[in-house]
Amino acid sequence: MTDILEKSQARQRLRSLGEALDSGALKQVARILNGGLSPSDIAHLLESSPPRQRSLLWNLVDKQLEGEVLQYLNEDIRGDFLSKFSAQELADLIEDFESDDLADLLQQLPDTVIQEVLNTMDEQDRQRVEEVLSYPEDTAGGLMNTDTITVRPDISIDVVLRYLRRHRTLPPMTDSLIVVSRRDEFIGMLPVTSLLVSNPAATVREVMDTDIEPIPVTLSDTKVAILFERYDLISAPVVAENGKLLGRITIDDVVDVIREDADHSLMRMAGLDDDEDTFAPVWKTSRRRAVWLGINLMTAFIASGVIGLFEETITKVVALAVLMPIVASMGGIAGSQTLTLVIRGMAVGQISSANVGWLLNREFLVSAMNGVLWALVVAGAATLWFKDIMLGAIIAAALVINLVAAALVGTVLPLFLRSRNIDPALAGGVILTTVTDVVGFVSFLGLATLFYA
Amino acid sequence: MTDILEKSQARQRLRSLGEALDSGALKQVARILNGGLSPSDIAHLLESSPPRQRSLLWNLVDKQLEGEVLQYLNEDIRGDFLSKFSAQELADLIEDFESDDLADLLQQLPDTVIQEVLNTMDEQDRQRVEEVLSYPEDTAGGLMNTDTITVRPDISIDVVLRYLRRHRTLPPMTDSLIVVSRRDEFIGMLPVTSLLVSNPAATVREVMDTDIEPIPVTLSDTKVAILFERYDLISAPVVAENGKLLGRITIDDVVDVIREDADHSLMRMAGLDDDEDTFAPVWKTSRRRAVWLGINLMTAFIASGVIGLFEETITKVVALAVLMPIVASMGGIAGSQTLTLVIRGMAVGQISSANVGWLLNREFLVSAMNGVLWALVVAGAATLWFKDIMLGAIIAAALVINLVAAALVGTVLPLFLRSRNIDPALAGGVILTTVTDVVGFVSFLGLATLFYA
Repeated sequence: MTDILEKSQARQRLRSLGEALDSGALKQVARILNGGLSPSDIAHLLESSPPRQRSLLWNLVDKQLEGEVLQYLNEDIRGDFLSKFSAQELADLIEDFESDDLADLLQQLPDTVIQEVLNTMDEQDRQRVEEVLSYPEDTAGGLMNTDTITVRPDISIDVVLRYLRRHRTLPPMTDSLIVVSRRDEFIGMLPVTSLLVSNPAATVREVMDTDIEPIPVTLSDTKVAILFERYDLISAPVVAENGKLLGRITIDDVVDVIREDADHSLMRMAGLDDDEDTFAPVWKTSRRRAVWLGINLMTAFIASGVIGLFEETITKVVALAVLMPIVASMGGIAGSQTLTLVIRGMAVGQISSANVGWLLNREFLVSAMNGVLWALVVAGAATLWFKDIMLGAIIAAALVINLVAAALVGTVLPLFLRSRNIDPALAGGVILTTVTDVVGFVSFLGLATLFYA
Repeated sequence: MTDILEKSQARQRLRSLGEALDSGALKQVARILNGGLSPSDIAHLLESSPPRQRSLLWNLVDKQLEGEVLQYLNEDIRGDFLSKFSAQELADLIEDFESDDLADLLQQLPDTVIQEVLNTMDEQDRQRVEEVLSYPEDTAGGLMNTDTITVRPDISIDVVLRYLRRHRTLPPMTDSLIVVSRRDEFIGMLPVTSLLVSNPAATVREVMDTDIEPIPVTLSDTKVAILFERYDLISAPVVAENGKLLGRITIDDVVDVIREDADHSLMRMAGLDDDEDTFAPVWKTSRRRAVWLGINLMTAFIASGVIGLFEETITKVVALAVLMPIVASMGGIAGSQTLTLVIRGMAVGQISSANVGWLLNREFLVSAMNGVLWALVVAGAATLWFKDIMLGAIIAAALVINLVAAALVGTVLPLFLRSRNIDPALAGGVILTTVTDVVGFVSFLGLATLFYA
């Protein structure tokens, strides 16, 4: 309890950090920063600070904490800080890094700096890092650590225990030792808890768990995360294609992948980066947002172009201009519900060619039923408002047409985009809105042109 | 490697499960289902199946697997299955459940059934379950297990080792034992790995880790998840207000919270449930979607009402009807970028009263700059299209006004909604679009009325 209380006191003190910073009480700030806070707390604080405070705070962080704080920082911000280090400073900084964290960090640096940093390391460390660097960041290879403790199947538990006792500490997240053959091939896992409850005279082979599925080094990080979630893993072995053990992945790194994957769809659907820095400076933010607004402006012009085709009809019946946004917006809302459901379903691996037919059929039925329901309401309202039953009938028909189109596009589009390797979360919404705008305006204004001509 | 290969073979066989089901080869299906697949795989398969196949498959699952499969199922689907069990069947089913999983499951049942099930349990088990049931599901209390292994600080490591060896297995995810006082108050954690590397003659007190912050039983599950993420925890002790140890939370349950929290904003922004069943039947889906469409219809009518105020102006200058969706939609896009960024920032605890002022200022500047940029483009295009420089100037002004309004509402609205305990992800988008539609139409058509009157 005391710890929690102290922490929340620390947080309260942190609230006044801003003021302390502003008033220039830097010594006091430094004491709070380096005294009570963990490196992840400091990283969180940096991420929650506007640029000027952020760089002031970063300069106050103890040299020996910098490396650990960097590991917890969002990539965007870390890149900014890293660009200010020299190769020698970097080499000192990263001495105690695990190989996967080190690889993550190095990947953000220019190639020449990477080489300089690698040159400062001893042969064994360099090889380990180069190994991890050789795999793409978003694969099992990029996630793995090489600090595994391995044992042979034919030794006794007692020997294992004596071997472990020669270590001063074990690597973090060591819930299992990895059992390998003489040629370093993966055989099974030996949970640490089994060591504690087994007969010391038993052999590793008798106690080990061979039910574990080793992770191929090329598996995508998203699939690694699904395996960890589905099988409640804490750590898992990573193997090369020939079955040789390369390293292990631990849950702490997987949790980051889960968070990023889950954030991905949310952020991308709004045209933002997954790893968007909430407190990025004005010019950086403006540049990124401008592109997204530009893309959406083009789709808005397409919709306007469609309306422009019906100028004459609108001049005759101005009520069309009043009601037309209803048809377009209801289509957009219905379509984005379907789109979001399908994108989420795809992300968790539920949707495949085997069940997409059923899904399409259900979405069709749902949108047709809801289309008819709300079309009746809108038709009634429009008829009463403009005293024109024809107008009511036209908007009802257009609404049903647009909702059905929205459901079909919302289901098929993300699957199509994925098959083309285009991110459905990023492109799906823009394309969908264009379709529901165009179909909505064409069906409503087109029908009106037919009947009022 | 073989395991992965076998798994993917199993998956390939699963693809033909649908056909096998259709052709009525149920024995074959049952063999695949209960032979090679883990309970979480079966749960995933059920979640990925349309209703008819889902209930066929569920009937084929081995009785002794049912309980475990239920634990991995989405709540919606689990509720459907549970409603078909009698109290006695339930009691048999849940014999091996951990207390938190059991509480989760019981919370979905009618009170009378819960009582019946509790009556079938022995005194000790009942007390443990009632303890967990007494805390809300979305707090540390609802997440915790009561199956902890505790030790006293004054005994030696050797005694601990001998005590553990009397167990046949340890509870899953036991990375640490919990050190408690004579009165069961939390003192510290004893990592299992420390047991393995410490001198057996040392006392628990000398080896234990007191740096750990115990989790108050009333802490929200979202905050628990943030603690686990920030401090890379595998398990953490849960304490009552008086410091007494109540249980522990393990990372596997926290991962589910992280996934749900991250999905929450995505799904809610589209008006869907976090735990939405992708393959829910037509009637269930229609009902839920109808409500969302109805709410959005009301906002669309508000926008139409605003346009209706300017009917006369539109009759005079029909180009206004053609261009007005551009102003509204650009506002909506800009606003939803800000809204999404703020909602995500709030979810990860980055945004507070200390930095919202800076954020508001940045969003204002960004939207003003982008507003001016794109206003110039739109003004140029409108002037060329309709040969009317006045129209260009009017749409430019309206666009800047709407983008600035969007940025301010997008920043302030989610914070306001949260302070009123309204979910910003659910209500934010609807309110924001209403604002950007109204401001967009009023500024564009209003300015036009002034200048063309």
